[in-house]
Amino acid sequence: MVRLSPSSLHDSLRSPALESIGFLNEVMSRYPDAISFAPGAPHPGFVAGLDVQQCVDRFLDHLVHEMGHTPRQARLRLYEYGPSRGLINGLVGEALRRDLQIDVPSDAVVVTVGAQEGMLLVLRALFRPSAGDLLAVANPCFAGITGAASLLDIPVVGVDETATGIDLDGLTAACREARAAGRRIRACYVASDFSNPGGSRMSLECRHKLLELAEREDILVLEDNTYGFTTAHGHELPSLKALDTERRVIHIGTFAKVCFPGARVGYVVADQPVIGQDRLLADELAALKTVVTVNTSPLGQAVIGGMLLEHGGSLAELSRAKSELYQRNLNQLMDALDRTLPGRVPPSIGWNRPTGGFFVRMRLPVPADVGLLEISAADYGVLWTPMAQFYLDGAGDSQLRLSCSYLDADQIETGVQRLAAFLAKEIG
Amino acid sequence: MVRLSPSSLHDSLRSPALESIGFLNEVMSRYPDAISFAPGAPHPGFVAGLDVQQCVDRFLDHLVHEMGHTPRQARLRLYEYGPSRGLINGLVGEALRRDLQIDVPSDAVVVTVGAQEGMLLVLRALFRPSAGDLLAVANPCFAGITGAASLLDIPVVGVDETATGIDLDGLTAACREARAAGRRIRACYVASDFSNPGGSRMSLECRHKLLELAEREDILVLEDNTYGFTTAHGHELPSLKALDTERRVIHIGTFAKVCFPGARVGYVVADQPVIGQDRLLADELAALKTVVTVNTSPLGQAVIGGMLLEHGGSLAELSRAKSELYQRNLNQLMDALDRTLPGRVPPSIGWNRPTGGFFVRMRLPVPADVGLLEISAADYGVLWTPMAQFYLDGAGDSQLRLSCSYLDADQIETGVQRLAAFLAKEIG
Repeated sequence: MVRLSPSSLHDSLRSPALESIGFLNEVMSRYPDAISFAPGAPHPGFVAGLDVQQCVDRFLDHLVHEMGHTPRQARLRLYEYGPSRGLINGLVGEALRRDLQIDVPSDAVVVTVGAQEGMLLVLRALFRPSAGDLLAVANPCFAGITGAASLLDIPVVGVDETATGIDLDGLTAACREARAAGRRIRACYVASDFSNPGGSRMSLECRHKLLELAEREDILVLEDNTYGFTTAHGHELPSLKALDTERRVIHIGTFAKVCFPGARVGYVVADQPVIGQDRLLADELAALKTVVTVNTSPLGQAVIGGMLLEHGGSLAELSRAKSELYQRNLNQLMDALDRTLPGRVPPSIGWNRPTGGFFVRMRLPVPADVGLLEISAADYGVLWTPMAQFYLDGAGDSQLRLSCSYLDADQIETGVQRLAAFLAKEIG
Repeated sequence: MVRLSPSSLHDSLRSPALESIGFLNEVMSRYPDAISFAPGAPHPGFVAGLDVQQCVDRFLDHLVHEMGHTPRQARLRLYEYGPSRGLINGLVGEALRRDLQIDVPSDAVVVTVGAQEGMLLVLRALFRPSAGDLLAVANPCFAGITGAASLLDIPVVGVDETATGIDLDGLTAACREARAAGRRIRACYVASDFSNPGGSRMSLECRHKLLELAEREDILVLEDNTYGFTTAHGHELPSLKALDTERRVIHIGTFAKVCFPGARVGYVVADQPVIGQDRLLADELAALKTVVTVNTSPLGQAVIGGMLLEHGGSLAELSRAKSELYQRNLNQLMDALDRTLPGRVPPSIGWNRPTGGFFVRMRLPVPADVGLLEISAADYGVLWTPMAQFYLDGAGDSQLRLSCSYLDADQIETGVQRLAAFLAKEIG
């Protein structure tokens, strides 16, 4: 019988990112009754009442009354194959214009199977193995981008993330070092508004300076906007793409958090022209997509399209309602930590104070590894995520990530009590 | 402003497969009123009456009454993230057992975004760039697999496809040549029942011999079963996977044709154990999927799951109804060609006589290229697909592919009349 040697399989399968995703899922599944600060999933209260059929009907209505389709044609669009670039690009483009002041033609938008496929497509288009180009990422970093890079054998360079964004001197030094080694950094990945897992938010100054740096060093910027909508009302900053006058920024977003994950609908804005081709980078991404997923489920797109239409073509109102809950949860988590931990746990335990996003990071005086997680889950009924998987350089192994998005107020309180008991007893 | 040089983008974007997909879509879109023998899409009559909500409700019912979920939990499963390996693996495994005698545990099944993502995941898992392994494919070949290989920089070797399947001597020779060059063929892709575009069907003898060859040469077989359901009732042959006692076969399928494409749901059966890991290849594919699409839309899976449940957990009945239409269309297309072309067009024009699938291949005495397609579309109102894109070796440039799946009887008749006029006037 055939038996496959692990060493005969692609190296990415042995990468820390992929291995830890699998292992964590396994741990979580064994403790379904624990209070979990682990998942970065939207709050279940937002999706429980979803009426998918109503959204689909709204989109069909739009196809018939605004796009001139017959009812039969409209229904067929949902059930058949569709353009690989997407079906709701115009609606997405309109929402980006209204909500984020990102003003691009709908031709520059590609609808993808979540932000994840968008990242994979962008990396594939931009990186040729023979060129040996490097991807720079803010470190710690979302495992989805480093994982996609490892799937494509793209070498990654970590640049420290500070509280106000990526370390610009570090990025400049990385560009210089790459050049000295006869290589170059082709692109830099950042999450400008509330990175996962760092929780950092890029200051306006850092945004401007990053764009200047990108121009100077001739690199592209991949901006992940997944958590931008969690910004407290009135505190919005322009996205890198909104500030981008040179088309240096490729903007990647998702409807997973602001609408719902099960639709699997995200998007890429890629308005970079390709020389001599009368095409944009978006066209190249759509071409690559034909051999990855062919097209994004038109049914999923119809639900998201319907939700956009229901809200007047803008997600601002939807974002605000959700942002309020996540702000409340985040503040409650930090308050509960402040009220509960000091005096009970070693004083070397500290945590950051993000102003948005889903995540708080905590530093322990010992490794926050899977062994410790197992104890936390089995004996104290509380789950969290080890941070080591998010670091490129083996740092961060004494940190854990606490997510507040999926929990209710009372669960956050109880969870922090359990966490306090765990830390008091097991650490120190 | 940034302008990207085409040579700075990944080579696959310049591959014939990807370029031609884009170009053909563009030509098609300019002639919406032409009769099109181009698309490999299922007949619109099968999807027009689809009641998605009913399918979803059926699946929810199953989650509640058979899987023990509360109604709220069941609804959340549709809207939230889900396991990367899939949500309906048990139902898919059961259907494979009943309909195709493929008897594997549901752990060996991964649900993918169509067969296309399945192909990408399988290729990525099995091919390490540093190993320099080769993928053998039956030539002519579905552009989705060669396209996915080019996206992953996997070198491909074409082996002739005969009327009864892949040329086994050719495959043996290719293995030998690879070894002589210090390399090896890691896997061979075939569509055992009615290849796209070749229309060939592998004989039972060839199936057995291919499995023997695979064992002898230590290669894996990737079996694409997309068109297996179009087999005329009573003429079924066992799939390679059903015959596979050594776990040499990875079976890839899709619900796009037998259910509907808009769900974007396919699957891979990969029951190969990984040495020392207590894992199957399916687990590795699910791990890779976390950085490609995270998970397949649970909403899409629910619709397909509901359709499976509606039909008693088997697709046999559904397949039969659809197979009858496609058989009828295929026979009508060949009959119309027989009745209409002889005497009117040069006698060097011939076509094959497949017994299933969606496609007939026609050979012209001149190149069947995009220029000729443009004339056919503009002046005669009939569309077809140039075959050159499906060949690895530049052969096949005088062939075109005619698809019968999307058309009604009267459209096939009119289309063949137009084709005859076009061939009579423009060729010869």
